[in-house]
Amino acid sequence: MLYLIGLGLGDAKDITVKGLEVVRRCSRVYLEAYTSVLTVGKETLEEFYGRKLILADREEVEQEANNILKDADISDVAFLVVGDPFGATTHSDLILRATKLGISYRVIHNASIVNAVGCCGLQLYKFGETVSIVFWTDTWRPESFFDKVKKNRQNDMHTLCLLDIKVKEQSLENLIKGRKIYEPPRYMSVNQAAQQLLEIVQNQRTRGEDPAVTEETLCVGLARVGAEDQKIAAGTLQQMCTVDLGGPLHSLIITGGSMHPLEMEMLSLFSISETSSESQSIDGL
Amino acid sequence: MLYLIGLGLGDAKDITVKGLEVVRRCSRVYLEAYTSVLTVGKETLEEFYGRKLILADREEVEQEANNILKDADISDVAFLVVGDPFGATTHSDLILRATKLGISYRVIHNASIVNAVGCCGLQLYKFGETVSIVFWTDTWRPESFFDKVKKNRQNDMHTLCLLDIKVKEQSLENLIKGRKIYEPPRYMSVNQAAQQLLEIVQNQRTRGEDPAVTEETLCVGLARVGAEDQKIAAGTLQQMCTVDLGGPLHSLIITGGSMHPLEMEMLSLFSISETSSESQSIDGL
Repeated sequence: MLYLIGLGLGDAKDITVKGLEVVRRCSRVYLEAYTSVLTVGKETLEEFYGRKLILADREEVEQEANNILKDADISDVAFLVVGDPFGATTHSDLILRATKLGISYRVIHNASIVNAVGCCGLQLYKFGETVSIVFWTDTWRPESFFDKVKKNRQNDMHTLCLLDIKVKEQSLENLIKGRKIYEPPRYMSVNQAAQQLLEIVQNQRTRGEDPAVTEETLCVGLARVGAEDQKIAAGTLQQMCTVDLGGPLHSLIITGGSMHPLEMEMLSLFSISETSSESQSIDGL
Repeated sequence: MLYLIGLGLGDAKDITVKGLEVVRRCSRVYLEAYTSVLTVGKETLEEFYGRKLILADREEVEQEANNILKDADISDVAFLVVGDPFGATTHSDLILRATKLGISYRVIHNASIVNAVGCCGLQLYKFGETVSIVFWTDTWRPESFFDKVKKNRQNDMHTLCLLDIKVKEQSLENLIKGRKIYEPPRYMSVNQAAQQLLEIVQNQRTRGEDPAVTEETLCVGLARVGAEDQKIAAGTLQQMCTVDLGGPLHSLIITGGSMHPLEMEMLSLFSISETSSESQSIDGL
């Protein structure tokens, strides 16, 4: 049996009781280590689970899935995913491979950022399509995701923006030279995401388009959701460029146009200090 | 401290390790018993947690929240919610009350149907606004939610339909006579939801509108997501009227127009038997 087990969002103890029992009895336990991270590392998890974990990077999961699935028809193999196993497409792929090999699978769900963002008080059912914001480079500055943000705003829906993670990336030089030397991991902050968004807003204006988002649009920055030291800040997109939310992982919400009074009241708990605010929408909180 | 603790979706062991630790040390533990249910009852939870649970119905949470919050400034109180604490609005309300009373709170997240539906293979980020389908009565047959389904379809987005739950409802007669006699709980099945949807589709046609959904629209019925005996069936809306998914809880997904090949491949794992199918879209699976 292949078990796909969500680890939740905070630390080692966010695994479910059921998940922990399965981890402790599987013959091999993989930790998916490229779509998200917990606030604790592999060693802490190993100590708590009482099991050795095998790190599975993107390359391995996509190209060597058969290693992961080896003997899973006659023994139990666990594949651990931060959040819920169905946040990222790749895990559908693993299930399809398993099924083709006649291997049964089971999913042990857990919290995902997709539902846990509800902690800021915005109503989950009012979220539109989720977008991903990637690190820009000098030569690659994609803006196409912004159409979805606009569409959500035009439909009065909130947009959850998942922020880029670069783990086990090679520099261009190392890639070309075939050197397996990896850069330190990078996690996009709310500040960086907001700055890129404001640049897109400017570009849209320059092209005479209505960006449907302005410097004053009410946003919510979230950091380490589910962890003891989680931080939430509600403020304008402009304020998101400078708000200090601490270490990774960060997520950003661009609110829809109209809000329920309960949503506004909840957001006011996380409002960036009003004295430093230049924004009407924040004064209104 | 007020703890809002998600119980996940399946049985007693779907609580997180962290959640269980908190439950075991709190002075009072409430179980929210009206927005969702697990596959096991209160007694099973009590046995597993080693704690007495106080059932909190809608009336109590909305009108007597102060009882729940009593002494939560000097002791620890847990409020357990099936799924994640932020699936339903009411829990924002409880947090706001706590905050006004100077009571700190913490959330221990868990899987919610909102993210766990990913188990059918549809990509979470492609879901539009979530809708709720309520039981129709002879005199109350709301259709307005259907506009959201149409909008999602027009934007190529899937719609998660949460199906009605009637717990601790009084008959009109008992309500009028002030008798606190309650009807047995009712949980809407995928069959009932599909039948109501088809009636709305017919009504729209009669009025000359384009319903954007037909008998042949590809849907996914889900039952007891996260439990050992979970069932998933992919088929047409027409097929959803008769598919047998067993006991509650059920959810229904109306797919968006265009689908990713990986989504189709995953859905084919759950396809209603092709021989009995009259539908092109299912043959295509």
